[in-house]
Amino acid sequence: MEKREGEGEGEEEQVVNPWTVSAKGGGKIDYDKLIDQFGCQRIDQSLVDRIHRLTSRAPHVFLRRGVFFAHRDLSEILDAYERGEKFYLYTGRGPSSEALHLGHLIPFMFTKYLQEAFKVPLVIQLTDDEKCMWKNLTVEESQRLARENAKDIIACGFDVTRTFIFSDFDYVGGAFYKNMVKVGKCVTYNKVVGIFGFTGEDHIGKVSFPPVQAVPSFPSSFPHLFGGQDNLRCLIPCAIDQDPYFRMTRDVAPRIGYQKPALIESSFFPAMQGETGKMSASDPNSAIYVTDSAKEIKNKINRYAFSGGQDSIEKHRELGANLEVDIPFKYLSFFLDDDAKLEEIRKEYGAGRMLTGEVKQLLIQVLTELVERHRRARAAVTDEMVGAFMAVRPLPNMFN
Amino acid sequence: MEKREGEGEGEEEQVVNPWTVSAKGGGKIDYDKLIDQFGCQRIDQSLVDRIHRLTSRAPHVFLRRGVFFAHRDLSEILDAYERGEKFYLYTGRGPSSEALHLGHLIPFMFTKYLQEAFKVPLVIQLTDDEKCMWKNLTVEESQRLARENAKDIIACGFDVTRTFIFSDFDYVGGAFYKNMVKVGKCVTYNKVVGIFGFTGEDHIGKVSFPPVQAVPSFPSSFPHLFGGQDNLRCLIPCAIDQDPYFRMTRDVAPRIGYQKPALIESSFFPAMQGETGKMSASDPNSAIYVTDSAKEIKNKINRYAFSGGQDSIEKHRELGANLEVDIPFKYLSFFLDDDAKLEEIRKEYGAGRMLTGEVKQLLIQVLTELVERHRRARAAVTDEMVGAFMAVRPLPNMFN
Repeated sequence: MEKREGEGEGEEEQVVNPWTVSAKGGGKIDYDKLIDQFGCQRIDQSLVDRIHRLTSRAPHVFLRRGVFFAHRDLSEILDAYERGEKFYLYTGRGPSSEALHLGHLIPFMFTKYLQEAFKVPLVIQLTDDEKCMWKNLTVEESQRLARENAKDIIACGFDVTRTFIFSDFDYVGGAFYKNMVKVGKCVTYNKVVGIFGFTGEDHIGKVSFPPVQAVPSFPSSFPHLFGGQDNLRCLIPCAIDQDPYFRMTRDVAPRIGYQKPALIESSFFPAMQGETGKMSASDPNSAIYVTDSAKEIKNKINRYAFSGGQDSIEKHRELGANLEVDIPFKYLSFFLDDDAKLEEIRKEYGAGRMLTGEVKQLLIQVLTELVERHRRARAAVTDEMVGAFMAVRPLPNMFN
Repeated sequence: MEKREGEGEGEEEQVVNPWTVSAKGGGKIDYDKLIDQFGCQRIDQSLVDRIHRLTSRAPHVFLRRGVFFAHRDLSEILDAYERGEKFYLYTGRGPSSEALHLGHLIPFMFTKYLQEAFKVPLVIQLTDDEKCMWKNLTVEESQRLARENAKDIIACGFDVTRTFIFSDFDYVGGAFYKNMVKVGKCVTYNKVVGIFGFTGEDHIGKVSFPPVQAVPSFPSSFPHLFGGQDNLRCLIPCAIDQDPYFRMTRDVAPRIGYQKPALIESSFFPAMQGETGKMSASDPNSAIYVTDSAKEIKNKINRYAFSGGQDSIEKHRELGANLEVDIPFKYLSFFLDDDAKLEEIRKEYGAGRMLTGEVKQLLIQVLTELVERHRRARAAVTDEMVGAFMAVRPLPNMFN
């Protein structure tokens, strides 16, 4: 038996792959170690500054605050961009549930920023086939969820003239399937066992899937968009648990004459109960959903958001809040755009002059507004709009 | 390691799967044993008689003489047919070479007879994806070979109003891909290792392929042909080395709410050098190709066709030919339609009154005519005709 990547020396090592995110001893994910394990690069301040300069706009809060913290070949993408060469963006979602939580929105909010800042086209893959196989959903239910999730994605504000959303059940075939076969030929079963940890009792649908997620990295998979532009580069914004798919893809790409996709990767959005990995779909109180009412948001934050404040007001005034574990502060660092205000909270709350209740109050306000804005935007998304985003069509002005 | 099916107790056991046909100790395939191993049924005289009665025409020579010798659920197909329920035929070819040999024509000649006798529709799969993966051909070369092979298949005389020919690279997608995912979910990696003998060093393209060959067994894979007729039964004429794919398919079918396909299976056409398995593509003298000239056919048969005749004329007159190993006689039993004439040769040649040279002379005549007829028919197949057979279209009168 080959040792699985990420297993390291003992049972306690952190494991991060598309299906499992668990830290050593149940603690926090060690992102520095993950960067070492995976072999990607950290995004440093000079790279953030360079993006600022190249796009002539303030970097997104997720970039300024290190939510997107790792990359592969991002500098090469920027080099080419500076020379006047465009690229395209590729991101995706496995449509396994009706309602998205805030963590699900992060890659899409960030991708929207990248699309606007660089003025580039975007393909969004809805892996309804994956969810049909892993979650044992019917084909029809997976397809329904894909269209429902597409509405939430469209509600993030993507530009229909630059964005192609597709579901695998709709779109696999033709040039896309040919690339799946080309990729499949280059990856042994032992290799996917090493990367993804499949076992002999896993079904072959799972073994067949990695090429499906790999090939949107190649422009020739979208002849209606990029016909003839086979050297167009691809940049993939995603959470770092998806890195194994793209390590495989980057390994295969040169062997089939294609460019390696570049990546820009985020850390995980912490659960309400504390930062020990991803949120759990089975516990609705572990996350704020975009379908939560103002009352539910208020209740969840007040009751479940793990506080780094001290047990008594006296102790809190004396020691201040532990911001390293404080979820209300963490959440604000994702969603409060005002840098000065966040800095003020860091100082005041960290010094004990501000109480958890006040921080939670602000968070409730910020998230209620965000969720309310999303709800309004989603309600405005019609079936016709979904059809328009998902139509297989050319996008003649996608680079302008 | 799970033991592979067909490996039996020792190295010497016969192995029959889509990629390997080898008899015990290099001898003849033991078809009785194969029937036992695979768990299919022998086609007996009463079944042949029943087909005769139901179709009101003489059974095809391949059926009369036991070339198609095994089946699964053929009686059930006939029961249903007798009640007025139709079925459809599915066969296929892996397009790995430009020129087909006589062995390649056998399933198509037989399928044409079934189509005419039962008046049923037919789908023919060209697995260009399989050959791209197994033979390491480019996508483009596999597709080119698929269209070239389609011409040979069309030249066998199929009815364009009842026949849909498709290549996987063209057709995989939509309902077909959904069925691939449904099948893939039901088959573990260990299971395909047991059936097909894959190893960890095989690439995942191979592991992904069995569902591609499985799903044409299900009418819902062809909505343009069988929309709404999800219970239509499927009969697959094929060589018995393809049985592993359909054992898997039959195992999965009821679990996804589909009918099991029925099978009618042939033995292997012997090589010129003797009946020890399939013909070898690497030795052009091991087979007669449909592209061979009259002169080549004459030469090959005279020089290479293994004779069961005796070393000297005197001995031959005394002992007669060994028809069990005589290739000219075997070949005539496939392609000489005249039962009385064949019986005469059996008697005269077997008793030594007829010489090998005379039998070879007759075989040369029969095969030259067959190949010449095929060449003329193939030359008449235009690109437009290939396009017509391969167009995704309804076939409104396919059951009439």
